[in-house]
Amino acid sequence: MTDQADLDQQCINTIRFLAVDAVQQARSGHPGTPMGAASMAYTLWDRFLKHNPRNPTWPDRDRFILSAGHASMLLYALLHVTGYDLPLEELRNFRQWGSKTPGHPEYGLTPGVEATTGPLGQGFANGVGMAIAERWLADHYSQPGHEIIDHYVYSIVSDGDMQEGVTSEAASLAGTLRLGKLIYLYDDNDIQIEGPTDTVFTENVGRRFRAYGWQVLGPIDGHDTAAIEMAIRRAQDETERPSLIICKTVIGYGSPAQATAKVHGEPLGEENVRAAKDILGWPQEPAFYVPDEVLDHMRNAVGRGEAAEYEWRQRMEAYTRDNPELAAQLQGQLRGELPAGWDEGLAEPFPPGSKPIATRAASGQVLNALAQRVHGLTGGSADLAPSTKTIIVGYGDFGWDNYCGHNMHFGVREHAMGAIANGMALHGGVIPYAATFLIFSDYMRPPMRLAALMGIPVIYVFTHDSIGMGEDGPTHQPIEHLMNLRAVPNLTVIRPADATETVEAWRAALLNTHGPTALVFTRQKLPVLDRTALTPAEGLQRGAYVLWDSDDGTPRVILIGSGSEVHVALEAGRRLADERVKVRVVSMPSWELFDQQRAEYRESVLPSNVRERVAVEAGIEVGWEHYVGLDGAVVGMQSFGASAPGEVLYQQFGITAENVTAHARALLKR
Amino acid sequence: MTDQADLDQQCINTIRFLAVDAVQQARSGHPGTPMGAASMAYTLWDRFLKHNPRNPTWPDRDRFILSAGHASMLLYALLHVTGYDLPLEELRNFRQWGSKTPGHPEYGLTPGVEATTGPLGQGFANGVGMAIAERWLADHYSQPGHEIIDHYVYSIVSDGDMQEGVTSEAASLAGTLRLGKLIYLYDDNDIQIEGPTDTVFTENVGRRFRAYGWQVLGPIDGHDTAAIEMAIRRAQDETERPSLIICKTVIGYGSPAQATAKVHGEPLGEENVRAAKDILGWPQEPAFYVPDEVLDHMRNAVGRGEAAEYEWRQRMEAYTRDNPELAAQLQGQLRGELPAGWDEGLAEPFPPGSKPIATRAASGQVLNALAQRVHGLTGGSADLAPSTKTIIVGYGDFGWDNYCGHNMHFGVREHAMGAIANGMALHGGVIPYAATFLIFSDYMRPPMRLAALMGIPVIYVFTHDSIGMGEDGPTHQPIEHLMNLRAVPNLTVIRPADATETVEAWRAALLNTHGPTALVFTRQKLPVLDRTALTPAEGLQRGAYVLWDSDDGTPRVILIGSGSEVHVALEAGRRLADERVKVRVVSMPSWELFDQQRAEYRESVLPSNVRERVAVEAGIEVGWEHYVGLDGAVVGMQSFGASAPGEVLYQQFGITAENVTAHARALLKR
Repeated sequence: MTDQADLDQQCINTIRFLAVDAVQQARSGHPGTPMGAASMAYTLWDRFLKHNPRNPTWPDRDRFILSAGHASMLLYALLHVTGYDLPLEELRNFRQWGSKTPGHPEYGLTPGVEATTGPLGQGFANGVGMAIAERWLADHYSQPGHEIIDHYVYSIVSDGDMQEGVTSEAASLAGTLRLGKLIYLYDDNDIQIEGPTDTVFTENVGRRFRAYGWQVLGPIDGHDTAAIEMAIRRAQDETERPSLIICKTVIGYGSPAQATAKVHGEPLGEENVRAAKDILGWPQEPAFYVPDEVLDHMRNAVGRGEAAEYEWRQRMEAYTRDNPELAAQLQGQLRGELPAGWDEGLAEPFPPGSKPIATRAASGQVLNALAQRVHGLTGGSADLAPSTKTIIVGYGDFGWDNYCGHNMHFGVREHAMGAIANGMALHGGVIPYAATFLIFSDYMRPPMRLAALMGIPVIYVFTHDSIGMGEDGPTHQPIEHLMNLRAVPNLTVIRPADATETVEAWRAALLNTHGPTALVFTRQKLPVLDRTALTPAEGLQRGAYVLWDSDDGTPRVILIGSGSEVHVALEAGRRLADERVKVRVVSMPSWELFDQQRAEYRESVLPSNVRERVAVEAGIEVGWEHYVGLDGAVVGMQSFGASAPGEVLYQQFGITAENVTAHARALLKR
Repeated sequence: MTDQADLDQQCINTIRFLAVDAVQQARSGHPGTPMGAASMAYTLWDRFLKHNPRNPTWPDRDRFILSAGHASMLLYALLHVTGYDLPLEELRNFRQWGSKTPGHPEYGLTPGVEATTGPLGQGFANGVGMAIAERWLADHYSQPGHEIIDHYVYSIVSDGDMQEGVTSEAASLAGTLRLGKLIYLYDDNDIQIEGPTDTVFTENVGRRFRAYGWQVLGPIDGHDTAAIEMAIRRAQDETERPSLIICKTVIGYGSPAQATAKVHGEPLGEENVRAAKDILGWPQEPAFYVPDEVLDHMRNAVGRGEAAEYEWRQRMEAYTRDNPELAAQLQGQLRGELPAGWDEGLAEPFPPGSKPIATRAASGQVLNALAQRVHGLTGGSADLAPSTKTIIVGYGDFGWDNYCGHNMHFGVREHAMGAIANGMALHGGVIPYAATFLIFSDYMRPPMRLAALMGIPVIYVFTHDSIGMGEDGPTHQPIEHLMNLRAVPNLTVIRPADATETVEAWRAALLNTHGPTALVFTRQKLPVLDRTALTPAEGLQRGAYVLWDSDDGTPRVILIGSGSEVHVALEAGRRLADERVKVRVVSMPSWELFDQQRAEYRESVLPSNVRERVAVEAGIEVGWEHYVGLDGAVVGMQSFGASAPGEVLYQQFGITAENVTAHARALLKR
């Protein structure tokens, strides 16, 4: 063995046994994949990855995603030995309260973790989103002689990733988009939790990816650093196709139980830890052993990284001199800033007296106005752009022949759309939006949840938000979805009542930089509320506000509506006022924004001594007790919808002013 | 043109214009796909489909699924002309309130509709489930000389279906399982809503499916009945691989706007309806025209179907004579009956004084006991069987070499698992269960919702149901999921408190034949409640019950818990009782079952004048106001979880008896 080869093996075994020891110490975790994939990861990080451990957020770094997030210790070991701010003590505290080494990698918690992974397939698709953002920014900002955005996206993906549908969706789109800077290493180890992979997975993965338009390399020996190095080089040479490098590996490499499901998801056990160290010629003691020569070698990453970043900053300075406006715009986007005046005059198209307009249509107008000013705003739909009104007119279609187009076309792939949007937001420099019918949020729940967990600003545009969408019927009518999304921590759901609230909803979405926002719009037309007679729509920013009081003083009954049902509540309120009932109508577009307000404000909208409350919303009733309690009433849905014109459905399901007033009267009689 | 060819075209045009006229009349719907796919559908139904319009539920019929559910009028036209109980009047009422012709096909509403479709990809995967059920039943019941289960599963699938990840998952598994009786016609028309398909979908679908292990036929001319007929025949000849027939078609065939996205999702408009009728030589009047010779020819399906069914019944009789016990068992399963004594003694393994046991482990024991008696119970997990405890020991693995195995292996494909389970339930003869971690219910929301909408008995086994699962961290810890599932109409969610309630939960699941049931279990061990001192676990059948009262009479405070938190509530109750507070502890495993009880029962458990109520559940708090109102308190989660041992997390997030008693005391002081 050459000295270099010997050093390589030392480094690889260091990674392996940091993982083994940490899992053993935690008595919990996944040793098998770190042991099997250590050579792949080491070769990539040591020979190729452009990164700076001293500045993990440098914009033009390569991105590395561990899609097989259960192998988190593989990543933590690499971060530690290459010099990130992750001391050995953190590795000793693997999976413990307060540590920076949770069971699965968490973005924002651990320096150098580019994406929260674990739920399989997500990381694969996140990478596609990052590669999209890279090409988009490069096409907009790089200039001849100034390649200021130019990096790869790497990932290690597992058998489980390959089986998930979201991977298929994202891979097909990546092939179509010719994302040549995407380089994925497939840890093909023939084992999954229920046993040998071929019980459930006899497909030819290489052929499948070639069908998607990928360059497929291998299978190669995933423990052979030279083979891995050569394959990554070939992947870099291919600029028009994403590359999949199939690496045959042995899960739990070195353990007596290697190549079985036993090494996947639990500690090896002390006996097998000892045996593995013997087999691979590793000292038994100390645990968490990092030889000095390994640390010396791996920490070269710091010098390389600082040099690479310095060189980029030089290029960026030259670029800035030649292109000062572009550079300022780019830097602002990378910092996540909104340009001055970005939200001026957005409501002007919707003055009092405007004709009725669907909130989806109003949203389309607002989006188009915003796009003129907020350059990083880019996104699209899962093949429903004409219906979701999310086309930015005049800004081109994103595609392999036009990477600067603002309109993304995701195909009928909601799940990948959500995960790709996450990747775009994680990359930075863009503000992604993703659009489909509200019902199809069901297809993209996993990435939406991860966006909320990561605290990243993705904007969802969900239209056709109730039975009001009509004839397409119960398969297309959301019922439980509003309540479902409200239950997700750190996801802000906004369902505006009209065009003027739609303006405010978009404003709130762009201002929410610490988590995703779901904007929920109607298919059907709604009156534009007359803000000369009613409270201004800016009240939306507080989640809920008194839209109209029939009289001064404490109301006898409060009607609460969201979205299209605010109009139902208002009509009911007027009828009750005609009957001399002191009534208040509250527009409540966002539970999350309202619940964040101070108690005094909430009390001013919903006085705690007024228990006669009726909520009306064309969604599932259960849950509205959050505001109406046990003494109020809810007018909503208790079942699935039906196929008929929307107006007919509102009548048939009783979401009407008559029904609201009847409930209010019943409460007042008690 | 031969007479036959002429008649074929008449039939095809009848189907086309029934669809065109119905969409036009409804002023809503999708004419393009029925026009483009009419030749494929006609050829399949006229030359191959084994079905009896007079008895749409005959067990050994071929199954046909219109995965492209938006083309519903194609199916309704076929059902009408072949003699199902779907009069022309229903077609005239397309998409209207109360009709049997909703916007997308609905199982249970329209005779002959085998699956509710519309959300893309679902029908594709449902068919895989049906083909699995067919092989399973055939391997169990067919005997040499008695092929009593022997039918095909056909589907028409669209570009949109092909792009959805659930399709990829199901297709890969179908290839692995060698489901040779699966024959899918792919309506490859190059158009989707946002424009030409190649904007987003340049992959080679044929190659991709060959990689999955399918036989791929074509591309053929999808308007050429002879070519379609030959391809279907070749598909039937291939018994070891599923077949995909790629049919190139023209969307909106015959309309002046054919081959554009315009004909996809809205009426052609009167002018283009006229033009299309001219172009295809169809009479302008009357609308909904069915020539007599077309009806004569298509209604031959009735005679053919009755003969086929009669012939099958003859075979079934012979089989029954030779195999009376098997036949009785099969017939019972096909009727969805449970055998006598199926639930006897299930609780015996968990007497008072039993050692603590995780409900997932108790579930595994109950499942294994049930499998001995309920032969049709079959299912599996998305690669988490060892963790979800869903292996039925000694009943073999389902696979291409052993179709009678009871243990299905779905791979890491939760979405397909859910949709395949739907297909199995729709097929009948089996009771499918599908298992994964509760968090990954997010991956299978669309099929779960469709199971609820269809009212079919699928059992979900969801384990690792809270932060109690521990170190895997927030990516794997469900928070919003219990509340999310409770919001789905007709889905029954049951989260038992211990092993004895686990028995009752499984009992409830098997008794719920009109919708799906989600069983929610812990990873961590829980004490077995001492039912000699507490109310028997049978109370679970009513959703919630008084587990323990500290004193007679009306309690001063009510503590409500579900699942693992019942123990927390009980401990808190005992502490409060020590402080001489009259306290009641309610075990509430199922909101749905409880809300279905009579008002008197509900009042007896939760007296309306006792507003001092504390709910405790290791899930999101919002929503529990349904039972505790505005005057009670909730001890639960308000954020995502974290990575640490489960006990640590319970302490850190305050889901403890201390916290519950503190809240109770605060309520009592008010």
